[in-house]
This record gives sequence, structure tokens and C-alpha cells, in this order.
Amino acid sequence: MKQYLDLEDINDLDGLIQKAIALKSNPFNHQDLGRNKTIGLLFFNSSLRTRLSTQKAAQNLGMNVMTLDLKTDSWQLEFEDGSIMDANTAEHIKEAAAVISQYVDIMALRAFPTLTDKAQDQKETILKSFQKYASVPVVNMESATAHPLQALTDAITIVEHSTIKRPKVVLTWAPHPRALPHAVPNSFAKAMQMMDVDFCITHPKGYQLNPEITRNTRIIYDQDEALMNADFVYAKNWSSYADYGKVLCNDQSWMITSKKLNNAKFMHCLPVRRNVIVSDQVLDSDQSLVIQQANNRTYAAQAVLKELLESM
Amino acid sequence: MKQYLDLEDINDLDGLIQKAIALKSNPFNHQDLGRNKTIGLLFFNSSLRTRLSTQKAAQNLGMNVMTLDLKTDSWQLEFEDGSIMDANTAEHIKEAAAVISQYVDIMALRAFPTLTDKAQDQKETILKSFQKYASVPVVNMESATAHPLQALTDAITIVEHSTIKRPKVVLTWAPHPRALPHAVPNSFAKAMQMMDVDFCITHPKGYQLNPEITRNTRIIYDQDEALMNADFVYAKNWSSYADYGKVLCNDQSWMITSKKLNNAKFMHCLPVRRNVIVSDQVLDSDQSLVIQQANNRTYAAQAVLKELLESM
Amino acid sequence: MKQYLDLEDINDLDGLIQKAIALKSNPFNHQDLGRNKTIGLLFFNSSLRTRLSTQKAAQNLGMNVMTLDLKTDSWQLEFEDGSIMDANTAEHIKEAAAVISQYVDIMALRAFPTLTDKAQDQKETILKSFQKYASVPVVNMESATAHPLQALTDAITIVEHSTIKRPKVVLTWAPHPRALPHAVPNSFAKAMQMMDVDFCITHPKGYQLNPEITRNTRIIYDQDEALMNADFVYAKNWSSYADYGKVLCNDQSWMITSKKLNNAKFMHCLPVRRNVIVSDQVLDSDQSLVIQQANNRTYAAQAVLKELLESM
Repeated sequence: MKQYLDLEDINDLDGLIQKAIALKSNPFNHQDLGRNKTIGLLFFNSSLRTRLSTQKAAQNLGMNVMTLDLKTDSWQLEFEDGSIMDANTAEHIKEAAAVISQYVDIMALRAFPTLTDKAQDQKETILKSFQKYASVPVVNMESATAHPLQALTDAITIVEHSTIKRPKVVLTWAPHPRALPHAVPNSFAKAMQMMDVDFCITHPKGYQLNPEITRNTRIIYDQDEALMNADFVYAKNWSSYADYGKVLCNDQSWMITSKKLNNAKFMHCLPVRRNVIVSDQVLDSDQSLVIQQANNRTYAAQAVLKELLESM
Repeated sequence: MKQYLDLEDINDLDGLIQKAIALKSNPFNHQDLGRNKTIGLLFFNSSLRTRLSTQKAAQNLGMNVMTLDLKTDSWQLEFEDGSIMDANTAEHIKEAAAVISQYVDIMALRAFPTLTDKAQDQKETILKSFQKYASVPVVNMESATAHPLQALTDAITIVEHSTIKRPKVVLTWAPHPRALPHAVPNSFAKAMQMMDVDFCITHPKGYQLNPEITRNTRIIYDQDEALMNADFVYAKNWSSYADYGKVLCNDQSWMITSKKLNNAKFMHCLPVRRNVIVSDQVLDSDQSLVIQQANNRTYAAQAVLKELLESM
Repeated sequence: MKQYLDLEDINDLDGLIQKAIALKSNPFNHQDLGRNKTIGLLFFNSSLRTRLSTQKAAQNLGMNVMTLDLKTDSWQLEFEDGSIMDANTAEHIKEAAAVISQYVDIMALRAFPTLTDKAQDQKETILKSFQKYASVPVVNMESATAHPLQALTDAITIVEHSTIKRPKVVLTWAPHPRALPHAVPNSFAKAMQMMDVDFCITHPKGYQLNPEITRNTRIIYDQDEALMNADFVYAKNWSSYADYGKVLCNDQSWMITSKKLNNAKFMHCLPVRRNVIVSDQVLDSDQSLVIQQANNRTYAAQAVLKELLESM
């Protein structure tokens, strides 16, 4: 592995999942690999799980960690080629990425979408610019359109909790008061397409994800039909992709309840709004895997960082 | 010790003080204890001494440190059970505490009072919620009503500087332009009640601390009378507890001067407003212990973290 | 070396440059020196290169790093002696510096000028106050009037890239939309005066730097004349010193282009505004040393920290 921008950077998903599960048993076994190596965690946006779990993963591997909050610690960056920088931006990504590359061995980046400029978000301007001008491997800690560390976490969790060979996995839209990105459902869909699972997506009309990502995945507009006989139900809100960044529906009947969940396991990437996305009853039951998922964030990140360190 | 929320969590105060004094002589002697252990420092409020001294204490013990500023790095937390989270809060404490517990071995938390909602502050909603839902030991880095790391520091400092068997210790209110919390005087009073000292409190009328905390401690409204023959004078401002969070008095005559201090040692938790709480002459004299107190913050925290690590 | 407030603290610049170049080849060779030693990085202002490179340098030496953003993490500091602190400042520098000194072995500080109060900036109130009341060595990470870590970096870079015995080095003013400090050109001028180079400064009239710093250095108002036969061109904007903090000129013809640069190497401390200070063509060419300069920040800081650790 030479970088981890999206799931396509994984050569062997099953193998990587098994490596992550092995690291979970022996997290401190590879500290020589990271000794005197430094990861830079660069945040354009807030983070709790990603920040702590990626830092933990790096420290488990013996790495040093340097964190930079680009929205508060530093200046505004310019991403446009050839621009005359006489306004608000003080440093061009060309310099920023090249310079930071000299202080770190791996660069991890979080940069959310605008949700107003579809073209720019789809181009992944920030992530791709860092990758273009960095001279070290770049890890995506959630970009405009992808959250591949979360999707790897989700894949690990499904493998750990599967009791049958080919479980049915349902990604269901759920209501939320604000407009949210597509990164998590996009990457989850990609991961499920790479695994031996019976996968479908359910959402209200108008909430189709990018068809270049969903491809042949079944989309079912009737949530009850989709959830039938599910083994894993992954709930997540996202804003409209067609009517970009808009909240078209706030139908509370899409909230996941114990009745809807039936015997399935419940998954969510967190943070989750209780009694909006999912009922207290589900989250407080043994069927909820959300805390285990969050724990696996450490080992997903650690498996990726270990591969990157081994490729150096 | 299984947690350090308040002074009641200390089994043997004298023993803990002696352990802290021993650590001060040999701060790096126990690094195997903390190896591959991580402390999470969670701040809802600003911090200088507590942030640096707790981090230092953990590093002295060989621990990794992860710091999270919950007011800027993360989202707003929900503390109400059963709430429908369709407004400003994005994550429930149930998830936040359970998730962070998986990334750290010890969780330390700073969360100041509202000073407007007495019932909520007295319930210690934030601290107690983290403790309830965390699966690792929680350390109080100053909560709505208690600052037990400061009080342990103060106890260590008094033991170090006592020249007689049973010194007279006076906690005196002092003026301040803003409304301040009760955490420091509350915890100091508790610590003094646990020690073999002659302890009294002096403050203007209307400034009684919570009587469940002061219990049988003598309260003297005449500051000069209280300070007579004192060995240690601990100055601190606090707002009214009865008329909750209000500044009732700004009487500059309560400021500690060299004349008032007489031969006593001067103590304050810092930050201290010069020539408001205490005169320059006192702070710049050898009678002031404030810098030594701040130094002891490291060893108080280190003694507590060492006990917690040993209990794992 | 007992502190690093400005270039005068260097005993032997050539020797220090050679030590930095040696560290660049073997950055991890001296980790016993920093073991159980802590550096505190204190920021009153934003930072990218300085923050990361100083942290990296300390970690290369085996040190622990504690970072404090004084503008957000802590309270407002008072620098005036004898003040009655009943307004906005909550802690006096006397206490802050003395207290932080007890948690760290070296204190590094960034505090930009006001650019409105010339007298206060020239007095270096913040830096000098920390130095006065600290009991550990203080390192200047850019103060009101000096940026000596940058100047050491620049000196290292010139030594590394010199092909002749006594190169011609030109410091040229360049346009910028905002009023910028004098710290970088001041320290660069001092460093060049200490080296065996043919050094001159060029800028529009009204942009003379502090004559106590430029001393006998040639000042040439015609940029073309100054740049003639240059080996190194160091571009930097600064605001007026005489008409303190004002932007008197925005003449785009002072921008460095390939034609102006001719065969010289281009240097800048970064962040740099493209096509305002310097053209894309220069920055994207092999003649630009800005990325190598930024890399040398680590080894300049590491050489200084190593000297300080060795003096303890």
C-alpha cells in the first residue's frame, strides 16, 4: 500500500481485515516499525473518534504524532494553480504539502465537503492537492466524498460479528436535522461491494448516492422490504446528491427502532443522534455494535499505517 | 484507588502525600508502569497549570498523552437521558464516554460550573455522566464543585512547609471582579478537614460555602480575627453560594497584604490577580508559596495516576 | 548556549551551521540527551513550519513536547509591573513564566509584534518578560523584532548551496497586501553580517529597516542594480519601520521574476504569496530553495536545542 485515499488503495481487503484483527490482540508488537517515524494529523474539520483512534494507532506502532488544526493553528491555503495570491490565502498547497512532507513520514488529512459546490467536492480538491504535492504517503481521515478508514472499520466489525457465510447487509438512510456529507455511505457501499455479502441500500426517493459509486447495488425505496431478514443494518443520514447538499425529507418513520431492526445487528459510524437516527432502545441493546465499531477504528488505522510503514 | 473524582476517593491522604513527595525526588522511576498506557485529557474549559502538569505527570510515568479540547475540536454533547436529539447536540455522553474509554486507559476531565444553574452544577452532570458511562478510571481536573488535584497539591505543600505539628490554616475569601466557582475552596476545605491542622474559613457575610462541605469548620466573619497567628493563609475568591453565582462584595480591604499576612505563608492556586487578591509585596516575598504549589501539581497528579495504574 | 533569543546568543555561527548539517545526516543520534526532558512550545500566534519543525527537532532528540496555544487554551496575561489586575488580564507573567518553567526544561515562545505600538514592539515585552521570569532557557520562535531560528536556517541553506567562497546575497523587499513584521529581515540581516558573504539590501524608499540592525550594510534603492550578479536572492515583504507598521508601497514591479533572478538561487521563509512576492516560474524552478529552507528549520532548531541540552 502506497497511500490510503480510498478503498481502491487496498490490494486485499480480506487480508487487511485479518491483519487488523490480529493487531487488536497484540497492538504493541510492531513498535520497531514506527520508531523515529512521525505521522502528521492535519484537520480542516472537527474530529473526536478519528483524531483519537488514529493517534492511538500510530502510538501503538511506536510512532510520534504531530497534530495541526489547519483551521485555527495555521493560515488559509490556496488550491488554485496560477492564482495571484493578493487576497485571503497566505500559502499555496504546493508549498504547504511539500514542506509538511519533510517533517512527517505519513500525512493524514481531514477535509469535509462544501455541500454547496458539487463539482469542487467531487474533484476532492483538498485531498487530491495534498496527495499531488506531498512526497510522503497520504491517509484520508474523511474527505469530501470518502471515509475509507471508517469503511475498513465497518468491514472488520461485520467480519467479527458474522454468524453466517454470506450475511445480508442493509445501508439505510435515516433522518437528521442538518445536511450531512456522503463520505460515509459512499465508502461503506464500496466496502460492501468488495465483500461476500448480500448488500442493498434503502432511502427515500431523491436520496440516490452517486451512481458511479452504487453501480449495480440494489436500491430499494421501501425500507421495510429492504430490512427484511437483514443481519446487519447500517443507518446513516446523508443529504441529497442529485439536489446537491439539500435536506429533502425529514420523515421520522425512517428512524431505526427495535421493531424494524428485528434480529439484525445495528451499526452506525457515530456521532449518532439518539431518537432521531435510531431509538434509545436499539442503541442500549446488545444488538448495537456502535461501540465495537468505534473501537475498531484504532485497529483499522493501525493496519493501514503498518502497511504504509512496511512499504517504505 | 479506582478513580479520582473527589477527595473521598483517597484512602490514605497522609500516605498519598508522602508518595507524591517521594515522586518529586525520583520522577522517572516508574516508567514501566505507564508504558503503552494512554491518558486522555479532555477539556471543556481553558487550562494552563492543570493541562501542563497533568501531561508532565503522565509523561514522567512513561504514559502517552492525547489531548482533546471538547469546546473546539469536537461536537456538542448531550447529557439528558431519553432526549430526542434534533437540535444542537450531536453526540450523547453515553457514546462519547464509552468510545473514548476504548482509546485511553485513564480519562481526565475539566468541566467548569455554569454558575447560573445551581441544581445542575451541584449534580456534577458532566463529570458524573462521564464517570457513569466510561469504562476506565476518571480523574477530575476541576469540575463544577471540586478541584481535588489542586487540593492534594495544597496538602502536599502544607506538609512540606510546616514547621510545627499542628499548623493553623486559614482559608480567606478575597475580592475579584468576576464571578468565580467554588471548586477550589470546596476541595481545599475537605482536604484540611482530613489533616491534622487548625483550620478556619473567613469571608464576608453572604459568602458561606455549601454547608455540606464546610460542616463543622469554624467560619469567622472578621478577617483580622481569623488571620491571627496563622501559619498558612490560603486566599481565594468565590462567588456567593446562597445567592448562586453572584458577586455580592468587592471590598478591597479583604485583599491580603504583608501586614495581614504577618508571619504566615501565603498560598493560592493561581492564576492570581495581583493587587486585587493579594499585594505584589506578598507575592514577591519568600512567604509566598504559590510557585512551589504549582510545581507540586505535577507530583499530585503523578501520585494519583500511579495509584490508578497500580490498580489496573 | 544558555538561551536563543537572538543571533547574538550564538558563540560560533560557522560551528553551529556545521553541527546542524551533521544532525541532518544523523537526526536520531542524540536521543539520550533529550530523554525525560520536556520542551514547552508556547504560541501567541499561528504557526505551521515553526510548530512542526521545532516539535520534530525536539522529538529527534528524544524530548517530550508540550504545546500550549496561549491565545485559546489559557487566560490573558499581564505584563505590566505593579498593575492592579481588576480588568481583563487574569495572570501575571511573573507567575506564568515561573510556573511553566517548572513543567519544562526548555521554553520556546512565539509572540508577534503589534505593528501599532513601536516602542512596545522594540522593547520585546513578551519575549523579554518570559526570559526575565523563566528559570529555564527560552527559545525565540519569532518575536516582535527577531526570528533567529529562521535566520539560522537561512544561513545553513546558503552554506549548503554556495558554489563560491564569498557569494553575493541580496535581501529584497517584495510587495504584499498586508502589513508584515520586521522579524525575518532583521534576523536575516544579522546572520549575513556574521557570515563571509557580499551582502546588500534593496527596498523602496521609506522601507529602511531599523538602522541599529542594518548598521553598515549597503542599502540600494534600485532593485535591478542590487540584484546584479547575485548568487542568492532572499525576498521578503515588511511594513515600514519609520512610518511604523504602514504599507507605503504596493509596487508590483518589485516582484521577483525569472528575469530578475537571472542565475541566482531564490530564498523565502514561507508562507509566500505566489505571483505577488515571486512568480510561479521562479518557485516552480530548480533555482528555488524554499522547500530546502523549510526542511532546514528542523535541523536549525535541533542544533539549538542540542546546544541548550548540552549546557544543562
